[in-house]
Amino acid sequence: MPELKPRTAAGRALGDLLAGVLPQLREEAAEHDRDASFPTAAFTDMGAKGILGATVPAELGGLQVTSPHDVAVALAQVAAADPGAALALHMQFSRGLTLGHDWREAGDDALRALLVAMADGRALVSGAVSEPGSDYHRVSTRVARRADGAWELTGHKTFVTLASAATHFVVRAATADADPGDRRFAAVLLARETPGLHVAERWAALGMRSSGSPDVTFDSCPVPAAHVWVRGPWGQSTPAELPGRAVSTVAMLGIYLGIAERAAELAAKAAARHRARNAVTTGAGALLADVHTRLHSVRAVVAHTTEAVEHGVTGDPVALMRDFQAGKQFVNEQACLVVDRCLSLVGGGAYMAGHELARLYRDVRAGGFMQPYSPPDAISFLAETSVPGV
Amino acid sequence: MPELKPRTAAGRALGDLLAGVLPQLREEAAEHDRDASFPTAAFTDMGAKGILGATVPAELGGLQVTSPHDVAVALAQVAAADPGAALALHMQFSRGLTLGHDWREAGDDALRALLVAMADGRALVSGAVSEPGSDYHRVSTRVARRADGAWELTGHKTFVTLASAATHFVVRAATADADPGDRRFAAVLLARETPGLHVAERWAALGMRSSGSPDVTFDSCPVPAAHVWVRGPWGQSTPAELPGRAVSTVAMLGIYLGIAERAAELAAKAAARHRARNAVTTGAGALLADVHTRLHSVRAVVAHTTEAVEHGVTGDPVALMRDFQAGKQFVNEQACLVVDRCLSLVGGGAYMAGHELARLYRDVRAGGFMQPYSPPDAISFLAETSVPGV
Amino acid sequence: MPELKPRTAAGRALGDLLAGVLPQLREEAAEHDRDASFPTAAFTDMGAKGILGATVPAELGGLQVTSPHDVAVALAQVAAADPGAALALHMQFSRGLTLGHDWREAGDDALRALLVAMADGRALVSGAVSEPGSDYHRVSTRVARRADGAWELTGHKTFVTLASAATHFVVRAATADADPGDRRFAAVLLARETPGLHVAERWAALGMRSSGSPDVTFDSCPVPAAHVWVRGPWGQSTPAELPGRAVSTVAMLGIYLGIAERAAELAAKAAARHRARNAVTTGAGALLADVHTRLHSVRAVVAHTTEAVEHGVTGDPVALMRDFQAGKQFVNEQACLVVDRCLSLVGGGAYMAGHELARLYRDVRAGGFMQPYSPPDAISFLAETSVPGV
Amino acid sequence: MPELKPRTAAGRALGDLLAGVLPQLREEAAEHDRDASFPTAAFTDMGAKGILGATVPAELGGLQVTSPHDVAVALAQVAAADPGAALALHMQFSRGLTLGHDWREAGDDALRALLVAMADGRALVSGAVSEPGSDYHRVSTRVARRADGAWELTGHKTFVTLASAATHFVVRAATADADPGDRRFAAVLLARETPGLHVAERWAALGMRSSGSPDVTFDSCPVPAAHVWVRGPWGQSTPAELPGRAVSTVAMLGIYLGIAERAAELAAKAAARHRARNAVTTGAGALLADVHTRLHSVRAVVAHTTEAVEHGVTGDPVALMRDFQAGKQFVNEQACLVVDRCLSLVGGGAYMAGHELARLYRDVRAGGFMQPYSPPDAISFLAETSVPGV
Repeated sequence: MPELKPRTAAGRALGDLLAGVLPQLREEAAEHDRDASFPTAAFTDMGAKGILGATVPAELGGLQVTSPHDVAVALAQVAAADPGAALALHMQFSRGLTLGHDWREAGDDALRALLVAMADGRALVSGAVSEPGSDYHRVSTRVARRADGAWELTGHKTFVTLASAATHFVVRAATADADPGDRRFAAVLLARETPGLHVAERWAALGMRSSGSPDVTFDSCPVPAAHVWVRGPWGQSTPAELPGRAVSTVAMLGIYLGIAERAAELAAKAAARHRARNAVTTGAGALLADVHTRLHSVRAVVAHTTEAVEHGVTGDPVALMRDFQAGKQFVNEQACLVVDRCLSLVGGGAYMAGHELARLYRDVRAGGFMQPYSPPDAISFLAETSVPGV
Repeated sequence: MPELKPRTAAGRALGDLLAGVLPQLREEAAEHDRDASFPTAAFTDMGAKGILGATVPAELGGLQVTSPHDVAVALAQVAAADPGAALALHMQFSRGLTLGHDWREAGDDALRALLVAMADGRALVSGAVSEPGSDYHRVSTRVARRADGAWELTGHKTFVTLASAATHFVVRAATADADPGDRRFAAVLLARETPGLHVAERWAALGMRSSGSPDVTFDSCPVPAAHVWVRGPWGQSTPAELPGRAVSTVAMLGIYLGIAERAAELAAKAAARHRARNAVTTGAGALLADVHTRLHSVRAVVAHTTEAVEHGVTGDPVALMRDFQAGKQFVNEQACLVVDRCLSLVGGGAYMAGHELARLYRDVRAGGFMQPYSPPDAISFLAETSVPGV
Repeated sequence: MPELKPRTAAGRALGDLLAGVLPQLREEAAEHDRDASFPTAAFTDMGAKGILGATVPAELGGLQVTSPHDVAVALAQVAAADPGAALALHMQFSRGLTLGHDWREAGDDALRALLVAMADGRALVSGAVSEPGSDYHRVSTRVARRADGAWELTGHKTFVTLASAATHFVVRAATADADPGDRRFAAVLLARETPGLHVAERWAALGMRSSGSPDVTFDSCPVPAAHVWVRGPWGQSTPAELPGRAVSTVAMLGIYLGIAERAAELAAKAAARHRARNAVTTGAGALLADVHTRLHSVRAVVAHTTEAVEHGVTGDPVALMRDFQAGKQFVNEQACLVVDRCLSLVGGGAYMAGHELARLYRDVRAGGFMQPYSPPDAISFLAETSVPGV
Repeated sequence: MPELKPRTAAGRALGDLLAGVLPQLREEAAEHDRDASFPTAAFTDMGAKGILGATVPAELGGLQVTSPHDVAVALAQVAAADPGAALALHMQFSRGLTLGHDWREAGDDALRALLVAMADGRALVSGAVSEPGSDYHRVSTRVARRADGAWELTGHKTFVTLASAATHFVVRAATADADPGDRRFAAVLLARETPGLHVAERWAALGMRSSGSPDVTFDSCPVPAAHVWVRGPWGQSTPAELPGRAVSTVAMLGIYLGIAERAAELAAKAAARHRARNAVTTGAGALLADVHTRLHSVRAVVAHTTEAVEHGVTGDPVALMRDFQAGKQFVNEQACLVVDRCLSLVGGGAYMAGHELARLYRDVRAGGFMQPYSPPDAISFLAETSVPGV
């Protein structure tokens, strides 16, 4: 099957580097899933190989893979070996893209140092956004300016992918103004060893268990002023924020493509073994054709959506996000169905706890919970923005 | 929502008895799922209440619930509390139906004693059918007549639901004739303590982990002649066997309905909590409508298919199995989609390992692997039997 | 295939009578579709046979088929021959049910006379409800009391099924009070020859072209006071109206089942012809299995939904309508998909204008437009009523 | 919505030229649908504008649009105005591509003259392939060499798109050898005025009625030797033929995208009108989101599949055709569902015979019948070629 291929030289270079770490990731995937442990050794190796700076600007030592399509293709490669590792790697890649963008805009020294460390393989940077009970536009985590000019961060974040191994966190917070109308969003950078920062030891989800995504709490963590970037007004959703959110997350679609590709590979192998005995049956053939048709469409939507986001950043931000969300809804749903059909093709063995397909069935369902948006919010967004002149 | 209701007095009596054990089942479900342990206490309680003889003939002390519809409704009730327990209970109910039928035909004393023990709550009877690598019509387990007139059973069975707790096993075997043309199927009854019978301690599947379904091996197990029933020729599929297979398994559809009902209940509660804050959004509404439409259709297909099987046993066996398989394909697929949408409605918390919906997502996928047939085989069967005059 | 069968003696009697008119309906169906003409001869024959009074109370000479399930089964029979004729017949059957119910409540002489004429085959009664641009709860058609005590009706109705042949019309109108708060709904009975009543000659829709469903206009039509029944307040939707709307329309689901059954029959015949040459291919088999699975589910949902409506009329009216709408959404969508797959199975010839499947493809799409509700309104209704405690 | 855009300068030039003829096509579309008449005036205008040579090599006066993606985009533009016209135009474009390819290979004078005439707008060339009752690899149309060295063609072709207006036909035939093993395929070029060539006057299909696709019969038509190109052995399917079939037909997917885009536009307008009165309802929003998600995926699959075919012609021909067929299955099915949902959004008016959506509902269903392959054959092909190592 003609899988998606990188389109840029940087993307191809990344693909070549990744090829060297996939065997280890694949081999350890079952263990990390069982124990909900992080593939530390493989990430250390990725750091040594320069993979962790894949999206960092070239002048700071990175590979500068900025094409969302090529990042998606790289994540698909990794996800076919260990989906949770791909999710954790996405976190790093996404930070490279957004922090790299911010550095180009502002030339900030703190960002420069962090990006250089990412490219060197010394920094693993996690973004802490989701909170239990608060939504994206009304985060409860607060950053307050102290008398000495430094800041202090307090709050609770959840599903913090890569947190188990991260050396740094970029935290979405709000300024601590009493009047909500005065509050602003802020991005806050903290090193892991910051006093008051606590990463939960245990995290156990249905799938993506190797992604290291526990809760992280911040208890009056001190932050130097240079590591706080104050942004737009809190509590509001603005079209201007949409392109940034889209560019930093769209490549994640590649993860679910990678899972679907791997499931289809396992199913085709099972069918081939069966065919050695006698012909593929009508039922197996019907399911194989179904899998191939869906997989083709998932590849198409990943390619088209990443391209639409890449080319759309200078256009209408609502149209951009609409395309992203339509693509995300589609990929998440269809990738689940591909894995489902592959379980049927492989048969009862695939339902045993230790079977790779049983793991993929749990991992692939994570897609719908990824930012932005949840399925209900995506449907609402598509519904509200699909009527012209409104 | 007007859930399915029992249609017979016996079915209603069973429902009333079950109501008394559901709280315990529900309360312990997460623990048994985590540990892959069997809900022994609840089954002991069910025995004391007479539930374990629900399908046993009344003259032998059972409730004589013989309507597949009503058995399905009872299993739906249980599955909404603990799907694995429902699967184990289905095994017992199914044995009550088939052994009860055989007893009426033959008046056999061994069967009579076993059925009385089931009704008393002393006997839990598991049917051991599936084997690793052999299909239904070519089982490898062998029963051989010894010089002393008794028999000896040797073989390996897998996915033996209820085995963890069963007091007896009914094993599908073949006579040990050297010439395949001479071999015949045999049903073999063994008590758990039979020498050579070994139930595996560990069993870990993706879901249905409380169903107690480990491998069971038989190593030259001695069997009295009265506990071996020789049947038709080995290696052949005949239309005559279809009604029996359908009647003994069709009620299992209720399990997947029960899972879907429970998922929808959890999703509606989440939506109600959300609605307390503000209106249900377009996206949540779209998903709720989708869930309700699918759930209505699953109820309809469970009701219609169990009825078709019940009324069709005296008609064309191929038409009977065609209806069953169409219904089974539909229920298995749609129940999975209902649970999927409910995860989306509840949001990220539903993806945590301890959340009931995360468990239901794993449990509901078992449906496709249930006998008879696998999805590929069901499609092939429907394809081959849907053309008239062939 | 075990198609749905009538469950009452009256239903079976109706089925036997219908068997006598199906050949003529089938034979003329293509012609009436082409010309958008009404099958007048067949309806005359149905009148002579007593079919037109199928749902009329027995004391008034009717067959008193009141089971929605059995009415649906009868309509499925007719729809397999001529879907438009089934839709027109549904109009008559629905009037028999609602007018019969009203007569039992009120003992009204005008209703009695009309029902007797329906049973005799002399009266064909159409219900005129839909209007261009007004919805069900805010109809613009007005009935005003004149100085002499009689009334006068003025308005414009559209999609008035059976109008081409109807001898009488029951019109949904509002009293002509100036203050909307004073207006009430009214059912108004008019004979076709009433001055000012005009039935459009031409009516051309995508499908259901033999159903005789043109616009009807009323220009100051005089109506005796005994033929006006004033009801509840205009402009409001009340739960109390739901059971009546459900009971009078749910049997219509049988029409779309009948279309799907006929399409599947044509596809199976094509597959059988093809199989005479060589084996059914994997692709044809996959489509046949898909058709059978969907068709089984449509049968199940028609049976379950008509039963739910029949048994639910004394319960929660919202729950009743929710079941109906879930069933209606399901049947309409799946019946379209069955016909779609059958076109694929039959091949290019099915796309020719004169092919029966090309006609069924147009006819089956009418389902979504039938009262109550449209698909968007059904989704909204299901969304709003699926959250408990709201 | 970011619709697909041409990727080459030639494609953009074609798009600009087409913009000049779309108003006329759109205006006349209903009339040509009603009468099953060909849009002759618009095609004359297209000839004058150079559109009819869009795919003809530049050195012969054409625009040389050879990117399947850009041809698909052009056809989508036309299909949004008149799908049947787009199908007829596809026939001309496809001939330009295949004959242009053959001319480059062979430098043939007859082809050169024909291609120049296409670019001049003097030649409309239809390909006659399908036959009633014969499949692609066993055509019954025969071309026999006469004593004088010329040839004679006899046969019957069906669904000959563009035939109503074509000036020339390229006919798929077989040589008239008695021994099937000696027969070879031949492409035969005839001018419309050739004696014995008869184009049927009437042709009436469910949709695509403006495409001018009647039967064409050939009764001992004389053909000069220079207009017969003998090819590979008859009766065999070879991988080598797949790329040619794919390249010449893949752009057709654009037609069904164009229909879906137009339907969505009509539905969004209806929703906007409705929204002027009050908010879009949950149900309408759910359908709009569904339409947008599907439409996005259809765009993606058209873009990805045309690109896969363009880049895949030098690779594995089976993989190429597999991608094409997966894309074709997907686009045909999803485009139908988009139109279906749009009918629901627009409401009852869309079911009237004269409504554009009622026409699109009939037109869009043609996709499944287009060469190569039918849905059953596509499923079989995908099933057989999806297992590795076979």
